[in-house]
Amino acid sequence: MIPFKVVCRNCGREVRRDEWRWRDDCGGVLDIILDFQGRKFAELIDAKEENIRRYAQLLPVEELPSVHQGWTPIVKKNIDGVEVNFKLEYLSLGGSFKDRGAYICVARAKELGARGIIVDSSGNAGISFSLMGLLSGINVDVFVPKHAPEGKKNLLSLLQANVHEIDGDRMEVNREAIKAEREGLIYVTHWWSPYFIEGEKTMAYEAYEQIGNVDYIVAAVGAGTTLLGLYKGYQELVGLQALDKVPKIIAAQACGYTKVCEELGARKECITKSKLADGIAIGDPPRRRQIVEAVKRTNGHGIIVEDAEIKKALVELRKLGLIVEPTSAVHYVALKQSIKEGFIKPGSKVLLPLTGSGLKLVDELIEIS
Amino acid sequence: MIPFKVVCRNCGREVRRDEWRWRDDCGGVLDIILDFQGRKFAELIDAKEENIRRYAQLLPVEELPSVHQGWTPIVKKNIDGVEVNFKLEYLSLGGSFKDRGAYICVARAKELGARGIIVDSSGNAGISFSLMGLLSGINVDVFVPKHAPEGKKNLLSLLQANVHEIDGDRMEVNREAIKAEREGLIYVTHWWSPYFIEGEKTMAYEAYEQIGNVDYIVAAVGAGTTLLGLYKGYQELVGLQALDKVPKIIAAQACGYTKVCEELGARKECITKSKLADGIAIGDPPRRRQIVEAVKRTNGHGIIVEDAEIKKALVELRKLGLIVEPTSAVHYVALKQSIKEGFIKPGSKVLLPLTGSGLKLVDELIEIS
Repeated sequence: MIPFKVVCRNCGREVRRDEWRWRDDCGGVLDIILDFQGRKFAELIDAKEENIRRYAQLLPVEELPSVHQGWTPIVKKNIDGVEVNFKLEYLSLGGSFKDRGAYICVARAKELGARGIIVDSSGNAGISFSLMGLLSGINVDVFVPKHAPEGKKNLLSLLQANVHEIDGDRMEVNREAIKAEREGLIYVTHWWSPYFIEGEKTMAYEAYEQIGNVDYIVAAVGAGTTLLGLYKGYQELVGLQALDKVPKIIAAQACGYTKVCEELGARKECITKSKLADGIAIGDPPRRRQIVEAVKRTNGHGIIVEDAEIKKALVELRKLGLIVEPTSAVHYVALKQSIKEGFIKPGSKVLLPLTGSGLKLVDELIEIS
Repeated sequence: MIPFKVVCRNCGREVRRDEWRWRDDCGGVLDIILDFQGRKFAELIDAKEENIRRYAQLLPVEELPSVHQGWTPIVKKNIDGVEVNFKLEYLSLGGSFKDRGAYICVARAKELGARGIIVDSSGNAGISFSLMGLLSGINVDVFVPKHAPEGKKNLLSLLQANVHEIDGDRMEVNREAIKAEREGLIYVTHWWSPYFIEGEKTMAYEAYEQIGNVDYIVAAVGAGTTLLGLYKGYQELVGLQALDKVPKIIAAQACGYTKVCEELGARKECITKSKLADGIAIGDPPRRRQIVEAVKRTNGHGIIVEDAEIKKALVELRKLGLIVEPTSAVHYVALKQSIKEGFIKPGSKVLLPLTGSGLKLVDELIEIS
């Protein structure tokens, strides 16, 4: 395993690696920094593994559970003269890209001695953490809003999570989850945890091995873990001498939840808040500054998407054989818009993750179709 | 492409390849026979493709749609001293192994000039055919029992299939579907079609490339396409000089639908008919004789499974991180039983396909948990 340190992004302090921290004492978000010591990507891969353990040397965890994770397929399509590579992140054990981050978080929490973890999410993250906890023998307490769909709460129970229903909004749920933290029972959040990003970065490693470099990547932004994971993965590929530079990042947000895109100069007259893109309905993600900085550094841009466009995109994607959830379709809208605006040039190459399965919420898809 | 012929299993007659036939005039089932002309498996693979098109030369279709299909992951586990290789067939576009067969059938139907296809299934096969039809621009008419779950009918509509509800049992639905056949609109059934088996056989090719030879394969039997697909795939691997012999096949059926297993000498005191294993609730599959013969030739055996065992297996599989539908769990019960009976020996190696995703039917899984 490559040596690594955990550093506060706000005050620059290095924090202890051997205890679980989801943020620094100063309130700043934490980053994990690997020390490559001049080594190259190709020599650090375990090529016989077609799953996330292929990159075990580049992950800050000693022991990784022996279940399948990652190595999701690519579907290549020519769209308006652009080579679009859909990465089917939804063909995963828990049906979404969040399995990657949860896999690393739970493995690390276990090796730091956690008996149980606390999570706040009724969506894909809750499912991923519950599943990874179940297979790792770690108890999972999930805090969800009382008004969350019954189906989702049921799935969490099926995965043997303890579901706590909180009467209040999303921020209230978050506060209650944090309050429940105690010795041996730790708060693990994809909003904050640097280990979550370590899981997500493997998407970039895989894409590089599958299709080589790309010119653009599209990432919908809620907490920003897809975007930051891809950014970190590509940055590391540069550090590991596999690539010369990081692709341009296109950040996509849905009406009503557009702080990142606004800071990137994106404008759109939104009539109502998005109801469809529930996976990215986060007002102000803790890593917002980091996200904006990442996009700017790659000379990327932001795209704001509305529900009518999401609906249309879902139908188009199904015609390509891709049954995804509405949040995934946000990526597709941002792609088409970026091509239309001339930001993505004909003849170029794009990586577009499809993050969540539509099979989990057929009823919802019917309702909006 | 390897030359092939289509032959009636009953009367031995060769039928025309250039028109769609789902059975012979004599009523017999059809087989596709490839003429390898002494060629070897390794030289017929397109190794740069990590999907079903890797085996394009061994498939009886000229043009295969450029969507992702196949190359499903393997999860290896030591269970009671046996190396069990779960093949995650449910991590597929339509959420089940039936995507493989539907992919080949629809591609072949299209190249034979069909404008539309008729299917009778409200389950995984209906979903797979509707999805493959949608992405291939082929109309799909699906005949389903009136009492089929609304959720399943909704998913078919979402995939733009024309859903015909028939007031009657499964056999009545089948008769109505066949009656609807006319010029350009062909009946395509996984119960009968030899092309469906051609899709399914690629499971064996992949498993061979992923894990080498195995000693046993476990296959739940409804219409028998998993079993016959695997059998044909392994037989062809022998014909293509990759393997010496076909693994022993363990056929698994659920209480109430046990004709194949009974012919194989399996006995069990079933109290009630299975309600859970709806994917294999077929009284008498058209290819029954062929299935029994295949199992006998490999010195395999049959295992009958009841609902209480399926329930327990579903929980055990989820603890391994595998959220599958009840029918998939039948394989797992048969595995454990075969180990217990001493039929599968310690130290041996097993291939066990997990055929359908549990994410499609969380409500049902909750109900029985």
